[in-house]
Amino acid sequence: MILEIADFRIHPGQGAAFEAAIAGAAQTILARSKGCQGYKINRCVENPERYVLEVFWDMLEDHTVGFRQSDAFPQWRAIIGPFFAGPPVVEHFELVGKSA
Amino acid sequence: MILEIADFRIHPGQGAAFEAAIAGAAQTILARSKGCQGYKINRCVENPERYVLEVFWDMLEDHTVGFRQSDAFPQWRAIIGPFFAGPPVVEHFELVGKSA
Repeated sequence: MILEIADFRIHPGQGAAFEAAIAGAAQTILARSKGCQGYKINRCVENPERYVLEVFWDMLEDHTVGFRQSDAFPQWRAIIGPFFAGPPVVEHFELVGKSA
Repeated sequence: MILEIADFRIHPGQGAAFEAAIAGAAQTILARSKGCQGYKINRCVENPERYVLEVFWDMLEDHTVGFRQSDAFPQWRAIIGPFFAGPPVVEHFELVGKSA
């Protein structure tokens, strides 16, 4: 399992609209992608213009190849991209430890 | 529930030692703190010197007051701090959406 962490900064005052947009797009586009196990959308307490999207993929390539090179990707970015105040920071992670 | 996301950059070549140190300290110090529901330690695929620690707290103050002002905090930082290549970036998040 691979965790994608996508770090977004959005334009001020657009939080409610962004949350509605990304929730809809995640459910209808992201969750239907091959290898997508699930996702979480998190809003920052200290900076409400910062969001962290976590996506759990079977394999790295399910995101980097399967999703990003699919027809679904431009649809996804068309919905959430207009809210971005800067380029998103996206990297992938392996779980190396957790609580019992 | 509040998610703490702590973003660490460590010195090159110290990954295995850091993972052993933080796994032990998380289990013996962090997990025993009041309000700590659990944690995950994640290593970045693209940049193996980057780690993201996720800690799930009952309330924001369980981390910012209860843990950080406890005797446990300097113990925790004494174990993981020497690995840091720069100051950690720590913020807190509320879950605003997730997969069904």
